[in-house]
Amino acid sequence: MNNTFAFEIPEDIKHHFIDTSDGRKLHIAEVGKGHPLVFIHGWPEFWKTWLPIVNVLKNKYRCLMPCLYGFGLSEKPAQLNFNLDADFHAKDIDFIVNELCDVPATLIGHDVGGYVLQSIGSKTSTNYTGLIFFNCPTASVGKKWVEDNHVNQIWYQSFHLTELAQELVGYSKDTIRIYINHFLQHWCHNKNSFGPVLEDWVENFNQPNALIGGFSWYASNNQRRLATLEGKVKIPSEKIPIPAAILWGKYDPILKSEWGPFVFEHFEKVELSYANKSGHFVHVEEPSLAAEFVDSHAEKWRF
Amino acid sequence: MNNTFAFEIPEDIKHHFIDTSDGRKLHIAEVGKGHPLVFIHGWPEFWKTWLPIVNVLKNKYRCLMPCLYGFGLSEKPAQLNFNLDADFHAKDIDFIVNELCDVPATLIGHDVGGYVLQSIGSKTSTNYTGLIFFNCPTASVGKKWVEDNHVNQIWYQSFHLTELAQELVGYSKDTIRIYINHFLQHWCHNKNSFGPVLEDWVENFNQPNALIGGFSWYASNNQRRLATLEGKVKIPSEKIPIPAAILWGKYDPILKSEWGPFVFEHFEKVELSYANKSGHFVHVEEPSLAAEFVDSHAEKWRF
Repeated sequence: MNNTFAFEIPEDIKHHFIDTSDGRKLHIAEVGKGHPLVFIHGWPEFWKTWLPIVNVLKNKYRCLMPCLYGFGLSEKPAQLNFNLDADFHAKDIDFIVNELCDVPATLIGHDVGGYVLQSIGSKTSTNYTGLIFFNCPTASVGKKWVEDNHVNQIWYQSFHLTELAQELVGYSKDTIRIYINHFLQHWCHNKNSFGPVLEDWVENFNQPNALIGGFSWYASNNQRRLATLEGKVKIPSEKIPIPAAILWGKYDPILKSEWGPFVFEHFEKVELSYANKSGHFVHVEEPSLAAEFVDSHAEKWRF
Repeated sequence: MNNTFAFEIPEDIKHHFIDTSDGRKLHIAEVGKGHPLVFIHGWPEFWKTWLPIVNVLKNKYRCLMPCLYGFGLSEKPAQLNFNLDADFHAKDIDFIVNELCDVPATLIGHDVGGYVLQSIGSKTSTNYTGLIFFNCPTASVGKKWVEDNHVNQIWYQSFHLTELAQELVGYSKDTIRIYINHFLQHWCHNKNSFGPVLEDWVENFNQPNALIGGFSWYASNNQRRLATLEGKVKIPSEKIPIPAAILWGKYDPILKSEWGPFVFEHFEKVELSYANKSGHFVHVEEPSLAAEFVDSHAEKWRF
């Protein structure tokens, strides 16, 4: 599959804008009919990041691609917000699924979305048939965040907390391009995976408060992150009961695939596979493989 | 003392440019007569950072203010250089002192300069009467670099290794100003300490390869830094024999004053004091106190 076409926007795409009970506007892109799949993106992403696999899956599934609060076409905070953690976003996703789906959905998460899926999974819910992750950071990573030279990979998680980041990255559209492109390339195994849509990403993060919206995830996750990397977060005694499947990009420089087996400490029923030609963004780097992975599990869990 | 005048350039300042044996040009500013004091700066600094205390000490001492290779008016590498570690700079300082001083000098170091002084001190040398530090990071800090939330302070040490840093910070004179000003403010207790000379700093780091020169310190110190924060660096069994004195800014956010007592593991004879109104830059934030501290020790060690 050529990535230029992979990111093509389907002609029959629909855009929902719905208001939360506390008055925040959330955007959800939708395409296709059938069993509902709900895709939860990470940073620096928004709904369009799912197009390469959605363009495969839309012929069989109803694909819902929300933008998390602070991201994409959803409303964004005007200042760095420290309260937009995984539990916060999990409630928004629950709300969206309740509003838009009549039957239990399958959730697909990546990066921030991976944390959101774990938050949803840790609550008893019959809304979901299963959880699919493209790479899955858990509390078990612990001190490994700062071991084996990995401290040199995680600097942006601290940088994003500073006013400097807003000023420096947000200085101009050019500096936004430099910054976002760095991560889209550095975190990919195939460095040009996002090449065809780089300007879409730049336009997205050049929207008012789009940088702050993304950085707010890091502000909100900061205490938990620090506790995790200092080895102070305990593994939950109760595993997540919803069936789970993880496809982990073998060459992800930030969420290392050698951390894969940690997932068995967090899920009752989980399958772990590796995408051997991917880094961080399996859904973009190996969309056919990723779509097949989603299809096979979503199909199995429906019955 | 008002800092606007503190940074005033003495009328009788002299500028030396000398060539190392491998053909690199080093700059040394000089003012005053008497016992030689050699001041070794840190990042993001260059010779002018010493003016607030040199303007006090020049009436009694010969003050030599070199720019480390890669910094200020010294020659700079055109690409990120991974070989400019503390031992490298220590040899340059030895060379400068041999070229310019007839009698043993007293060394004053800060930040990068603090590492350079420890490298010099660990070799037997009769060139120096003593070592004075404004804050003094040692191998004993170890894992504390990433404990107690300190991981959020050290991000720049990783960021400086990336090409992104060169592109983003070096995008324009404005982005250089935003970046350098962040550290000059964040690391100070008195936030406006560098206010009067901010544009001098911007001009300095806007010189060709000036960012790369500074970032090369972080590239060159990277392996040692990672080993230190992963707790893999042993405390040297032999302590530094040259007398030492440390004046540590109480509110330094990056080199925490609570790490002060670690110095007793590294020096045979050392005095530790605190500057109660300073952060990282004691020589700029409390120049009168810092000058008095230098004077009293330099005087004592001469006899």
